[in-house]
Parts: sequence; C-alpha cells; structure tokens
Amino acid sequence: MDSSGSGRRRFLKHAVALAGAAAGAGAGAEWAARGQSAKSEGKSEASAKAEVQAKDAHDHRDLLRRGARFSVDHITYYTPLQDYAGIITPASLHFVQYHASHFPDIDGQQHRLTIHGMVDRPLSFSMEDLKRLPSVSRIHFLECHGNSSPMIHGAGNQNMGLPVQYIHGMTSCSEWTGVPLSVLLNEVGVQPGGSWLVSEGADPGKFSHTLPLAKALEDVLVAYGQNGETLRVEQGYPIRLLVPGWEAPFSVKYLSHIKVVDGPYHTWNEAMNHSVGRPDVSGKSRWYHFQFGPKSVITRPSAGLKMRGRGYVQITGLAWSGGGVIRKVEVSTDGGKSWKEAKLQAPVLPRAHTRFNFDWAWNGEEAVLVSRSTDELGEVQPSRAELYKNWGISEEESKKPARAIHMNAQQPWRVARDGSIHDAMFS
Amino acid sequence: MDSSGSGRRRFLKHAVALAGAAAGAGAGAEWAARGQSAKSEGKSEASAKAEVQAKDAHDHRDLLRRGARFSVDHITYYTPLQDYAGIITPASLHFVQYHASHFPDIDGQQHRLTIHGMVDRPLSFSMEDLKRLPSVSRIHFLECHGNSSPMIHGAGNQNMGLPVQYIHGMTSCSEWTGVPLSVLLNEVGVQPGGSWLVSEGADPGKFSHTLPLAKALEDVLVAYGQNGETLRVEQGYPIRLLVPGWEAPFSVKYLSHIKVVDGPYHTWNEAMNHSVGRPDVSGKSRWYHFQFGPKSVITRPSAGLKMRGRGYVQITGLAWSGGGVIRKVEVSTDGGKSWKEAKLQAPVLPRAHTRFNFDWAWNGEEAVLVSRSTDELGEVQPSRAELYKNWGISEEESKKPARAIHMNAQQPWRVARDGSIHDAMFS
Repeated sequence: MDSSGSGRRRFLKHAVALAGAAAGAGAGAEWAARGQSAKSEGKSEASAKAEVQAKDAHDHRDLLRRGARFSVDHITYYTPLQDYAGIITPASLHFVQYHASHFPDIDGQQHRLTIHGMVDRPLSFSMEDLKRLPSVSRIHFLECHGNSSPMIHGAGNQNMGLPVQYIHGMTSCSEWTGVPLSVLLNEVGVQPGGSWLVSEGADPGKFSHTLPLAKALEDVLVAYGQNGETLRVEQGYPIRLLVPGWEAPFSVKYLSHIKVVDGPYHTWNEAMNHSVGRPDVSGKSRWYHFQFGPKSVITRPSAGLKMRGRGYVQITGLAWSGGGVIRKVEVSTDGGKSWKEAKLQAPVLPRAHTRFNFDWAWNGEEAVLVSRSTDELGEVQPSRAELYKNWGISEEESKKPARAIHMNAQQPWRVARDGSIHDAMFS
Repeated sequence: MDSSGSGRRRFLKHAVALAGAAAGAGAGAEWAARGQSAKSEGKSEASAKAEVQAKDAHDHRDLLRRGARFSVDHITYYTPLQDYAGIITPASLHFVQYHASHFPDIDGQQHRLTIHGMVDRPLSFSMEDLKRLPSVSRIHFLECHGNSSPMIHGAGNQNMGLPVQYIHGMTSCSEWTGVPLSVLLNEVGVQPGGSWLVSEGADPGKFSHTLPLAKALEDVLVAYGQNGETLRVEQGYPIRLLVPGWEAPFSVKYLSHIKVVDGPYHTWNEAMNHSVGRPDVSGKSRWYHFQFGPKSVITRPSAGLKMRGRGYVQITGLAWSGGGVIRKVEVSTDGGKSWKEAKLQAPVLPRAHTRFNFDWAWNGEEAVLVSRSTDELGEVQPSRAELYKNWGISEEESKKPARAIHMNAQQPWRVARDGSIHDAMFS
C-alpha cells in the first residue's frame, strides 16, 4: 500500500452508507423481514417483535413454497469428468445445482451487495465499487455436499452403473477472481461479538447460508470472475461467495446481503436439506459440515467406458481435499489389496483439484481400479466400509437420503474381461 | 509403469507403421516432396535428387503464393488483457495470428501425425492413438514473436495510443493437455545424428518451423486440449505443438508432420517473417530466436482506460519469461525513478503468466506507471533504451519492420491529471 497506513484501511469512499437503521427502511430492515432473525433493526423492541412474528408466519408459507420448488424444480448440470483433462474445468462445464426452475435475470449495473448487522458502518456496494477494491484470483474446487451420494450408485445401466459424470460430477475446479471478503468486512468494521455471517442470494428462492467469521476472514472471496471470464449466470452472476474447501452451499450465489451476527443461524436450506440425522440419537441431526475430507476418483477408465484392448493404458483422475494440499494419491488395480503411488501433476494447489496419472498395462483379466488420496493433514481417503464405521452408520442406513451426503469414500471400478467397466462401489 | 520395463518403452502397438520407404510412397515421401529437404527417402540417390529438384521449383512458386497470402489475408485476434483477471486466458479470448483467410476444416477422425526422417520406425498416429498415450497438462503462456512491436506504438488514438489489448495482447496463457513429444520420439526411435525437427501443419499455407531436438525432448507437448476443452479450430484443431517459453511460431498448429533431420532448416516462415536484420552486418540476419526474455505489462490501469478519481487503485498486470519462473516484479509510479516490489499471486509457474498486484493511492497528479520483471535466471526486463543498447539498434532503426519483433521492453503508461491514460513508450 502506497498511501499512509492505518490500523483499519479503507479503500473506498464511494460505497453507499446505509440510511440510519432507526428509519426502519433500507436493506437492513428488509433483510430482517425475510425471517432469518428475530433481531430488531433498531426499532422499538415491541414493534420489531410484532413485525417479526408476522413475517415469520409469512416466511413459513414462503419456505414451504421453496420446499416444493426444491422437490419439483431444480437445475442440475454434471461436469463430464471422464472427458476433460488437466485441473481447470471449462466454465461451460462447471457443475450446477440450482434450486429453482430458471436462473435469475439480474442487472449487474443495479445489483448491490449490502453488508449490515453487527457492523460500525453498514455499506451497500455496487459492482463498480467491488471492482475498484483489491482483487485476487485463486484456483479452487467446489463440490456439492450431495456429490457421490450412495443413493445414485444403484441407478443407471444395470451392468455398468452410471458413468463417473453422474456419480462424481458435482465437483469442478476454476480460477476464481474477486475481492477478499476480509477487505469488505474491514470496510464495514465488524463490531465486538460479531462471530458469524448469514449470506443471502438474490435468486427467487433467496438461498441463504451461515458462515463462521473466522473462515470469512481467512480466505473467502466475493467472486465476480471465473476462469478469466465474467461470472456466468448459472454460477451466480454478478457475484457469489467462494468458500474454499467447504461444501458448496456455503458459496452463496447471486450474493446480495451479508449480515454479521453473534451466533450460527439455522437457515431453511441448512435445516431442511443439509443436515444429517445422527445414528446415535434418534430425532437429532448433525448440523454443520464444513470442510471436505480427502477424496479422489479415477476418471478414466471408469464405468460406461470400454477398454480398447490389452496393453498400455494411462489411468488418470482427480484428487482434492478441503484440508489443503494433496500429498499423495495411491492407485490399486486389485481392488485395494495392493497400492502403488500415482504421479501428481503440477501444479498441486491447496483446496484445488489435483490431477494424478498412473501408467498401467492391462493383461485382459478382470481388475478392480481404485484410488485413495492423502492430504497435508495426513488424513487418508477411507474405503466405503471405513467411512461408515467412522460415522457409525450401517450399510443399510447409508443408502437413505438423510445419510447420503458428505461422501468421500474410495470409488472402485471393475474392469471385466470383455473390456466393459462397471461401478463396483456396492458389489 | 506397471509392465516390465525396458530401456525404450513403447506404448502403442496400433500406430500405423509407414510403408517401406523404398516404395517411395506414403507420408514420408510426400513430406520430402513439399520441399523442406533434399534428402532422399530411401530411393536411389539419383531419382530422389531429380524428384526433389522438380519439387523445389514447384515449391518456390508455392511459397510465393503463400507470401502473398501472408500480406493480404490473415486473421488476428488480440487477447483483451485489460478485461480479464487471473492467469488463465479463456480459450475464447486466446490470441490468434493465422496466416490465411480462413481456418482449415480438418476431420479429426482422419487426421494423422506422421513422424519420419532420421528414425528407426516412421509412424503415423491417429488421434485415437495419441489419446491412448500418457497425457500431461501444463499451464504455459504463448506469445507471438511480433507482440508489443514498436511499430504499433504510434498507432491508435493520438492522445491515448492503442489500448493494451492491441499492443501486448498477442500473449495468452492456458492449461494445455497432450502427449509429451519425447514419448512420440521414443516410439519412432531417433537415429544417431538426428538433432533437429521440422514440423509442418495441415493448414492451407502448410506453416512449417524447425525445432532443436534437445528442446523437443525437454518439455514440448503435442497438445489436443486447452483449458479442459478440445483444442479449438483457431488454436490448431486437432493438434498443435506447444513449445513452452519459446516464440509462438515454434508451436506449429494443425500439426501433421514432424521430420527428424540433422541440422536447422530455413523454412519460408522463418526466413521471410521471423528473421531480424543485424545492425552490425549489412544484409545479414539473425535467424533463430528461441526463448522469450523476462517481460511484464501493467494491464490496468492502461492506455484508453480512465482513472475513476483519486484514492485507492489496484495496479494489476502480468509477467512472464521463457527462462522459467518469475521471481520478482517491481512497479514504479514515477516513470522508473523509484521502484517498489509488487505482490506475486500464487500460483507462480514456470513459463506461465504470473499475476502481480500493487496497491496504490492516486493523488490526482501526473504519474507514469511502469513495471519490470526479474526471472529465475536473474535476468531483468530492460527499459526501451536498455533493450536497444543491448541489441545495438538505434531508436530510428527500432521502428522499422525488420527490427520490430522480440520486444520485451518495459511499458510506461502516463496518467494525466484529468485521469486519462496514455501510452508513454515513445514519449
């Protein structure tokens, strides 16, 4: 920084400061009315309570409608992992899991990001404001919390199973560009006691998610670019959160509001879709899942493809971990009895897809190909049996929807003598 | 490699071995007939000489036609460096310098890469053959040898000069995927004495270029993918050479033939377009330029843009070097009188664009912004004056076409008090 330093540097003089909260108007109040919080926005306590109760009733109906939308209308694109190479997923092939029937049509010129709640200076940023701030670009994966779900392993072609695209294709990796959220939080000034954020999108369902402040200050971006392009509509144009290494629902798209609060909120999406029943206590759920464990998958050869004859074949795949850098990937061609180390292809970046390659000669006999990764924390990707044992879940239980997320088990592919390749996760 | 090793591993059993050279047919002979070489392809020496002489005459006319094409028809796309972020250029925005009026319409199913000349086993590879071989992906820049030419600094808006896109936008950076050329050369077996390669494309002009064998064995790819996608037509579909860190004409597009030879060839493109007159010896040219020296350019703010008022501005740009990794980028806001170190953004990769950022506060006074990079070899990007002094070229000379390539001088941008930004390379 060339200018004179101060403890709290502010970059912008032009972001719009919000109108005083006592007026009860403006984005701050509007946000509260959306039912995330019973906190008043500076109104008299009584009037705030009354309003919030009324809104809560309204929101309940609204949430039910959203729930219906979850069930009947959503847009899902899977990344064709078997078809691309390297670690950068083309923006056009990035996975999408979107909870409405059509993408929102947001005017980037009019769009604002409002940061309010427990802050010294609530601010509303235009896209021009955001683009004047210090930007960074970082290569990170995203992964849907429901990727690789055991539920879908039984689906698809009875012999082959689904191809890798539809089992594991809700992860992708891009070079994201934006403003560190820490810079924006520095602009507004988080008040003592502010410890969590609630983020909301401007999509029809107003997708909302909580985030601990510590993570927000560490490496979260307010991203407006992907792989050098402007963020695409299906990726949250004009801005999205990008929460590296954490499950994708944290990375709220069409980001319009961030509220600084003093504890975790239970947003509808988190409560209804992203919590996981606890096997040990009936009726209780685990609430928060943050960081992905180490994971990997062989993308070629994989189910639905066919071997082109005996002899040399390059086994290739992707490995990643929310815990940081991938240190090692091992490949087995005998279903996990013996392992050999694969080659990691540079660059190997934290919280990014890492490409691994393994030279193999197929002798025409049946083989079971499987990979496992180890991350910089020393954690090793578990087998399916190990995963369920760790979580205290029976195999039968594991196929129920409420258990079917946060799945990072090893993926075995069976190569038959006729060269066909089959999903061997459950056989 | 899982199979039993041998000194010279061969991966494919299915690549088509060329018909015996004695038959005088097949791609090998056809190649010789295109006039790169007077070497016989196993024919009797006399008949080979006669054929080559006849073909040479034909080729001369052909080359003249190609020359005309060079002058009147070519397709140039410039990467909008001022508009994108990060280090990965979107494939759709990669620069193009193509020497014909339309891109070739090549059938990837029919396309072959033939490697012949001084080899044990001339082979012709289909795309399926190539894709079965071990693939790698690497992030590298490409740069046209004519990028940043002094000739174009006088062009454009008289006050501003051309924007950075049209001065420096013939460089881009992608994640390229393909087969190491060393693997293919291992398949064919380079004979003792083979020391150079001549590569030829299947485009209408049959663009050809030489390459030392040592570089080919080091890190050159036969690339079929870019940023996870299939190579685009304008980038050489279905395959191109990718010669990291060297001037882009080495990276022959639409690659169809590689001939192993025992010395450098003077292809038409190299002789007529890519050689540079020597200032010290009249009528003589420097022939080969390989590796780019350290270079950098501030992409924002830059000519044609306008400052949005005093206060904070992030200066951002790209640095790269054919010599490997960028170690340091310095930024001056007073035209080179004083320098401060910019932040390099991870990942910093060898022979790849490296993003640098520099926090600045504009005080509203005139300023001259300029950057200079230092690479891992310790080489420092020169000022324009230093560059010409190094090469023994007068300023007047430097603007002539024959001097106007291989340009890696520092780029100064003048910020005027009214916020307008001007090209200050020659003022």
